[in-house]
Amino acid sequence: MNERDSVAEEEDEEEGAEGRGLTPDIVREIRVALDDERFGEVREQFAGLHAADQADLFELFDRDRRQKLLEAIGARLDPEALAELERPVRDALVEMLGPKRVAEAVAELNEDDAVYVLDALSEEQQKAVLAAVAEDIRRPLEEGLAFGEDTAGRLMQRDFVAVPAYWSMGQVIDYLRSAEDLPDEFYSIYVIDPAFRPIGWVPLDRAMRTKRPIRIGDIMEADPVVFRPEMDVEDVAYEVRQYDLTSAPVVDESGRMIGVIMVDDILDVVEEEAEEDLFQISGVREDDLNRSVFRTTRTRFSWLVINLVTAILASVVIGFFDATIEQVVALAVLMPIVASMGGNAGTQTLAIAVRALGTKDLTAANAMRQVSKELLVGVLNGIAFAILIGLATYVWFSDPILGGVIAAAMVLNMIIAGLAGILIPLGLDKAGVDPAVSSAVFLTTVTDIVGFFAFLGLGALFLL
Amino acid sequence: MNERDSVAEEEDEEEGAEGRGLTPDIVREIRVALDDERFGEVREQFAGLHAADQADLFELFDRDRRQKLLEAIGARLDPEALAELERPVRDALVEMLGPKRVAEAVAELNEDDAVYVLDALSEEQQKAVLAAVAEDIRRPLEEGLAFGEDTAGRLMQRDFVAVPAYWSMGQVIDYLRSAEDLPDEFYSIYVIDPAFRPIGWVPLDRAMRTKRPIRIGDIMEADPVVFRPEMDVEDVAYEVRQYDLTSAPVVDESGRMIGVIMVDDILDVVEEEAEEDLFQISGVREDDLNRSVFRTTRTRFSWLVINLVTAILASVVIGFFDATIEQVVALAVLMPIVASMGGNAGTQTLAIAVRALGTKDLTAANAMRQVSKELLVGVLNGIAFAILIGLATYVWFSDPILGGVIAAAMVLNMIIAGLAGILIPLGLDKAGVDPAVSSAVFLTTVTDIVGFFAFLGLGALFLL
Repeated sequence: MNERDSVAEEEDEEEGAEGRGLTPDIVREIRVALDDERFGEVREQFAGLHAADQADLFELFDRDRRQKLLEAIGARLDPEALAELERPVRDALVEMLGPKRVAEAVAELNEDDAVYVLDALSEEQQKAVLAAVAEDIRRPLEEGLAFGEDTAGRLMQRDFVAVPAYWSMGQVIDYLRSAEDLPDEFYSIYVIDPAFRPIGWVPLDRAMRTKRPIRIGDIMEADPVVFRPEMDVEDVAYEVRQYDLTSAPVVDESGRMIGVIMVDDILDVVEEEAEEDLFQISGVREDDLNRSVFRTTRTRFSWLVINLVTAILASVVIGFFDATIEQVVALAVLMPIVASMGGNAGTQTLAIAVRALGTKDLTAANAMRQVSKELLVGVLNGIAFAILIGLATYVWFSDPILGGVIAAAMVLNMIIAGLAGILIPLGLDKAGVDPAVSSAVFLTTVTDIVGFFAFLGLGALFLL
Repeated sequence: MNERDSVAEEEDEEEGAEGRGLTPDIVREIRVALDDERFGEVREQFAGLHAADQADLFELFDRDRRQKLLEAIGARLDPEALAELERPVRDALVEMLGPKRVAEAVAELNEDDAVYVLDALSEEQQKAVLAAVAEDIRRPLEEGLAFGEDTAGRLMQRDFVAVPAYWSMGQVIDYLRSAEDLPDEFYSIYVIDPAFRPIGWVPLDRAMRTKRPIRIGDIMEADPVVFRPEMDVEDVAYEVRQYDLTSAPVVDESGRMIGVIMVDDILDVVEEEAEEDLFQISGVREDDLNRSVFRTTRTRFSWLVINLVTAILASVVIGFFDATIEQVVALAVLMPIVASMGGNAGTQTLAIAVRALGTKDLTAANAMRQVSKELLVGVLNGIAFAILIGLATYVWFSDPILGGVIAAAMVLNMIIAGLAGILIPLGLDKAGVDPAVSSAVFLTTVTDIVGFFAFLGLGALFLL
């Protein structure tokens, strides 16, 4: 977002890109207007924003300004914005709005967005909101809430277009033109059998090109990919990407079509999935950007405690060799190098392995090949860095044996690091544990302990 | 992919999910058939696979089996599979196939996929292939190749449906039913002015519901979001997500519509964007899962060299205090704890900050608030871990002063870590550098040096 630094051409796009959106300037203007209590101006500016930008604006402001902004815009908040908000900010807003206005907003949202918003509410908030919405809207929402978080059932739209195979294109068109309860958006017409099971689909572009007399069953794509409502959204996302689906039916245990998953609902899932791996490997359990200081401190604390234990374990290993260190202080000076190089090399492998497991590019079918590859990479880089650090040490301390000791420890630790970097996530995955969550700790524990033990142990052997 | 360990219900989905796809069993069967040279069976199995699964199969096999598989299936490789392959595997396959057969495949692909495949080829390979395709196909491909990598121009489809605003729905339908050169897939009908500038669009579902006499201009959505072909795909992806676009026109400098970006082309961009941050923070420049051992070793080496320098810098700092360590070996035993805790705390902040910059959730508008938040988190966790490690040290070495020293160093380093974790990426971003690429090294350099210096320095002051 640094238009200033970017070259002219890019700048044009930036402007183009930001023009519709939330430019730093607009944010500034609104902030100033807000602080000067020129609420009319704020309302005007705010009304011009897309729901997603309205949401971002609330996230950019601090607690007080959010409150003030909400008062300023009154009822003018786009319901969609509620669904776009990061949870902590949404919680705050819901508090400020109160069940009545939240219910009004929920009633206007798509079912999947409405369920998404409701799910984040507290028990009693949820009850209050549901009580305030009309019967016909409440029923499907309650059904949606019945499905587990991160399931296809939560993500699916309950409105879709389904017709029998014997209908002609003309009948379909007339039905579409007259029907009242059609979804706001659909990409395909589904073809169902008498038991309401999806047997095929017709993409709308094909339907548009088909003459009225033609039977829908004759132009449909058969055997659609179907999902079960309990299915994990990450598995759904994987198939949507793998098979380039724009939408796919969701069926209940009897095979009856109950909803449809659309590609644009998958975008966020795909991003969050990849983002999750980064956060979890880095030891943050969630995107805490908009969390309170205390919540953030608490969740990060739990991960750091585990790392403290790891670090103390490493110190215990060093403790075994305090007598050696007393005699050869150079060992103390150099020992972090071996450990940290191992940690870095292992993390490289870990990142690749964790993502590959997530995208199903690393499976039982190629695990052995990948492990032996990492072993080789470890050996090669191990030798390379053994030479580098060995010579550097020799020059620095003019002690060839010390150089040899650190070189040997380096090779060993780099090899262990490479193997640990892939074997740990593979093992966790086989054990049914999400490799992203815990791999990193195990890895650094291994590379620290091996690194310190190998270097100090060899030092004790050859330098005393 | 561990159906065995998962509970029954999930298992059903797994089966369901994998059923269509590349189950471990299918991979095994094909591998065995291949090794037994039962090529007929291999062809049969392979022909039943979706292009994306055919690509995965090649990636799962090693070099020799790929060669053998290619011979086995002969010309039966789905052209789409070429576009789905990871680059290193595709390079190998292109070599094996030769320009003639690659040209045949390219001719069958969508333009954006064809350009994607061609772009990865070597200079002379590209020439050879282009020479082998028909004139009318070559022209648009050459145009596509003219756009920079990762630009909207590369991603866009050049075929789209555009009609003047005064056309009636009837005219549009008749045009669609008769026209020859329509795209295989489209979600919207674009409305253009006499200068061929997009002035609106009609989603196909709305078009289907519109009676023949109605003017297209009266039902269109006005002012479409448009992209420039030079625009970075990550910015395009950001807007597609932010504004829930299913497709959007691409226009040249005169505003003339030259192509269209579709949401399903964005899925991979969105995933790669988030994935990139993980890889770069972890020090892998690229997804090297399918790279050769040597290529992998080389690219990872360059990052590890930088980290070696960092580690040596830290050692130099320790070197300043060798006299102190000689007298109080406990310092050597404990010093890695302070440094590693700082590194871990900093990495937590770094991951959040880097992603937030990528998704434009962290901007000039809220930077100060986030920085002071990280400062507070650092102070709070710093105090918490100072108490923990201070007491642990006191118990372990029954030396209260040593406990006090490590506690003080811990607080200091955790605070510095939190600040560095957000200020470094913010600074790099402002400087126009991708914060994901280099933040991690700077961070560990800071946390190591501050960690060792603070702990050993305080030790020298209070323990001698």
